[in-house]
Amino acid sequence: MPARRAVVLLSGGLDSATAFAVARAEGFDCYALSFDYGQRHERELESARRLAAALGAKEHLVLRLDLRAIGGSALTADVPVPKGRSHEAMATGIPVTYVPARNTIFLSHALAWAEVLESQDIFIGVNALDYSGYPDCRPEYIEAFEGMANLATKAGVEGRSRLTIHTPLIRLTKAQIVRRGAELGVDFGLTWSCYEPQPDGRACGLCDSCLLRRKGFAEAGLRDPVPAAH
Amino acid sequence: MPARRAVVLLSGGLDSATAFAVARAEGFDCYALSFDYGQRHERELESARRLAAALGAKEHLVLRLDLRAIGGSALTADVPVPKGRSHEAMATGIPVTYVPARNTIFLSHALAWAEVLESQDIFIGVNALDYSGYPDCRPEYIEAFEGMANLATKAGVEGRSRLTIHTPLIRLTKAQIVRRGAELGVDFGLTWSCYEPQPDGRACGLCDSCLLRRKGFAEAGLRDPVPAAH
Repeated sequence: MPARRAVVLLSGGLDSATAFAVARAEGFDCYALSFDYGQRHERELESARRLAAALGAKEHLVLRLDLRAIGGSALTADVPVPKGRSHEAMATGIPVTYVPARNTIFLSHALAWAEVLESQDIFIGVNALDYSGYPDCRPEYIEAFEGMANLATKAGVEGRSRLTIHTPLIRLTKAQIVRRGAELGVDFGLTWSCYEPQPDGRACGLCDSCLLRRKGFAEAGLRDPVPAAH
Repeated sequence: MPARRAVVLLSGGLDSATAFAVARAEGFDCYALSFDYGQRHERELESARRLAAALGAKEHLVLRLDLRAIGGSALTADVPVPKGRSHEAMATGIPVTYVPARNTIFLSHALAWAEVLESQDIFIGVNALDYSGYPDCRPEYIEAFEGMANLATKAGVEGRSRLTIHTPLIRLTKAQIVRRGAELGVDFGLTWSCYEPQPDGRACGLCDSCLLRRKGFAEAGLRDPVPAAH
């Protein structure tokens, strides 16, 4: 029997790399899906390409999206991202790096590709614990998307299959994600988290994403192979 | 009090033009959203541009999508669309012109723009009666999308607003849609339905979309201002 196919959203960060490794460990043939959406850290996409190859993706599709034209986020506009915030500040409210409806847009494309691939499984590395500011990372949101998705497609209507949105990291701390990725052999040196890559190629070490990553590696007792300027 | 804003999905066809006219008649300031997704009938997009201007859109955003890269549809690939089918044949099964998860992808972008515009209302001209082959045109699908959308965004999470997906045409026949559009002053000469525009600029008159349009105008007792080759 051939392996079942899964579509895995791969941003290039350490969460999605770990989610990919989980899907692979569960025996899926993995089809990696990334988006070029005008994000300020294009470096992330380069990481996605290297990770897809290193992790053994059957295919890697990079789709262009016009999210800059829609606006509404520091990640797709020329406004500064916050630096040096405390973890308490990060845990409060929705950050300016929130991109309106991003996961809904990403998952919608994953759904389309899953339908073409006759896959019933989508993996997404969302996390609701450590960084709860994004509405579209919560379990109730994912559950609602899955319900909608099963009414949206041919296979759903014809009762041929039931799509599952897998969120293997949703209830893990960043430290647990780092440990899980390490156990599964993810090369974290290929991942990229920083919103503001430095001219010398290092991570900034100060943006929310860098700070959270640092805390995760520290608590996991592991060294981050990606160098940071601060 | 300023008018409320609505995002209206505008394909360039007569359904979406009529849905726009309904939104306008309900007093909304309308923000038209179209997609350039590699559809074979690019003529449709030109119609969307002319309709947005004629119908008084506050803004018209045309977003590029990479749906061709995902595949799975006669509308985005080089496979023939059916010609001269009976209405019974059209009413059976899901047509090859189905684009995987298209409405989910379209509505996801509408959701993002609505969030940026602080709009609580999205209009989409889907229809479940006359042409029921598309899973993502059914009321239960729209309802599930609306539920998901209200968990996906800042405004939803913060309880600031409740998004509504309006489907003013969902239970109308094509003839009723034509009549409603005519009452609301839609210039059908600006709309485009045909999947295979002829070299001389006329509609083919044979594809599913042409046949359905012809039946609608005939039953409404109105003349279609768009000429067809057959």
